[in-house]
Amino acid sequence: MAKKYINPNLKKMDLASRLERIDIKQLSTKIIQGDRNALSTGITLVESTHKEHRKKSRQLLSLLSDASHHQALRIAISGSPGAGKSSLIESLASFRPDQSLAVLAIDPSSSESHGSILGDKTRMETLVGRENAFIRPSAAGKTLGGVASKTREAVILCEAAGFDNIIVETVGVGQSETMVSKMVDMFILLILPGSGDEVQGIKRGIVELADMVLVTKTDGDRLNIANESRRAYKNALHLFRQKNMNWDIPVINCSALSGKNMEKVWQSIDEFRAFAQKKEESDSISWLDHHRQKQNLQWYEDKISETALEYFLQNESIREKIEKHKTAIQKGDIKVWEMLRELIKK
Amino acid sequence: MAKKYINPNLKKMDLASRLERIDIKQLSTKIIQGDRNALSTGITLVESTHKEHRKKSRQLLSLLSDASHHQALRIAISGSPGAGKSSLIESLASFRPDQSLAVLAIDPSSSESHGSILGDKTRMETLVGRENAFIRPSAAGKTLGGVASKTREAVILCEAAGFDNIIVETVGVGQSETMVSKMVDMFILLILPGSGDEVQGIKRGIVELADMVLVTKTDGDRLNIANESRRAYKNALHLFRQKNMNWDIPVINCSALSGKNMEKVWQSIDEFRAFAQKKEESDSISWLDHHRQKQNLQWYEDKISETALEYFLQNESIREKIEKHKTAIQKGDIKVWEMLRELIKK
Repeated sequence: MAKKYINPNLKKMDLASRLERIDIKQLSTKIIQGDRNALSTGITLVESTHKEHRKKSRQLLSLLSDASHHQALRIAISGSPGAGKSSLIESLASFRPDQSLAVLAIDPSSSESHGSILGDKTRMETLVGRENAFIRPSAAGKTLGGVASKTREAVILCEAAGFDNIIVETVGVGQSETMVSKMVDMFILLILPGSGDEVQGIKRGIVELADMVLVTKTDGDRLNIANESRRAYKNALHLFRQKNMNWDIPVINCSALSGKNMEKVWQSIDEFRAFAQKKEESDSISWLDHHRQKQNLQWYEDKISETALEYFLQNESIREKIEKHKTAIQKGDIKVWEMLRELIKK
Repeated sequence: MAKKYINPNLKKMDLASRLERIDIKQLSTKIIQGDRNALSTGITLVESTHKEHRKKSRQLLSLLSDASHHQALRIAISGSPGAGKSSLIESLASFRPDQSLAVLAIDPSSSESHGSILGDKTRMETLVGRENAFIRPSAAGKTLGGVASKTREAVILCEAAGFDNIIVETVGVGQSETMVSKMVDMFILLILPGSGDEVQGIKRGIVELADMVLVTKTDGDRLNIANESRRAYKNALHLFRQKNMNWDIPVINCSALSGKNMEKVWQSIDEFRAFAQKKEESDSISWLDHHRQKQNLQWYEDKISETALEYFLQNESIREKIEKHKTAIQKGDIKVWEMLRELIKK
């Protein structure tokens, strides 16, 4: 008897055809009802780069942003590798089981290495399976911009699903923080005492993004150095321009291990939430509404480029020209700029 | 007598109109002849986002990539803040005055803070003014992609100007390294011993990019820990997939301060250069040629998006629609996805 041929792409194909057949209205209703499987399916759909899926995901996002009037607090948790982001998130969850949490991750290294080499299999195991928590690992993508774009869409889905807090976890310095700050309401910066983060965080301009600074792993031997870090940041924050003039940025020493000051961290998050939602007068809009309007505008502008490319590639003669150029480059033609000029003239 | 009105934009306008009037053929000839002022002007031109300047800079890049058959070695020097990138570059220059160097910088934090807050005014002062060195600080730009794009164009200009080595300096982890690795031939990773870089560099997937690892500041108290770092990296490099199967990645302890092993670093750079330019058989192409073909292809694909946007915005009714959408968003309309769908249908 001939061996059965097992198609390794079967699972992938299954998923693709399942997503194509999906009823978007029904999916959106289920997501709003809080169905976790529907939420997962929805995120898989928005993460797909398949043309038909993109169409469907735009439809889904339209339906959800139309329907959802629930405002979750969107929180970025950022810090160098080893600063204790995952432990902090776990600890936050265990200190306030009444608050539901969705956790999404942006990994700036993932576009090269397809995820961190050391792997993160053991991360946040106390959260997995908890009823009011939802964890989604890093979206895959070719560029950081692409990954961020998909994460932003996943945030919309989680918000529609009714979570109180949506946490976007991000590693690294510079650009990934800037991108994440464009999709959240509150930016929490984690500082590992004695790691050199003290000076570098300031240099990197991240202080301009932070709404809260947490000096992590304040336990055991690190107590003294943590106090020093805290003082250094408190002082630095007085020197620099703040993102938000009416919000006094708290700098808190805490420890996920011992639980030290974790209540205080939650208290500050709640204060920020109250601050953000408060309206100065009855006819004015809140800081949060104003903030999100600015973000939506930026987002719209960013998406125009994407739309332009989709449109451009619909033209067959342009697609043919591009293929011709690619072949020439692969044969050693180095006049890339000449080719681009030709493309523009077309 | 009325006070004279001084236009604060005068200098800027001067530059803009000067760039517009410039004779591109003449500029390209001067750049190829090694004229530093022409090189500076050329880089300012490619960095400009002004529409007319973009046209002229494409023309310049076409002329230069057509004319230049000189192959500089394009080297990325990357490492955490404090790893000693600037000192290393200065030391490299002083150890081999016969090798001309152009230094360009990519700063992932610059799009948010418009350059590092602490400033870098004192950096590489021994290089400034040296006849066979050229230093250009970080390009400004809204996105890291934009900054990288302009740096890549500046690399072409420096190469046409005849430099032996073009160094692209970059700070940070993840995405900025990945971008820089797409525009260079050789990637040198700097590791500061005892800073935690040992483990994190591996986790971040940067090892996959490196062609050489330098354990920096190997002097004084750091000798022992530097030896440990070096061993750790040597071991790690055996475990991971390498970018280039025929190149054995050197891991060198060095000190810009004491000069320790700086000769050895140059020797390894020269070995890499020889390796990259060598042809296996008379009719085959070198690793370097093959590598650059791949990079050019990637580059061409990246630039298509940019071209598409330029093309898209030429349509007046689309521009009008976009303005209408923006106004709606600023008034609180949150249906951004609905608007994007409308734009695509148009």
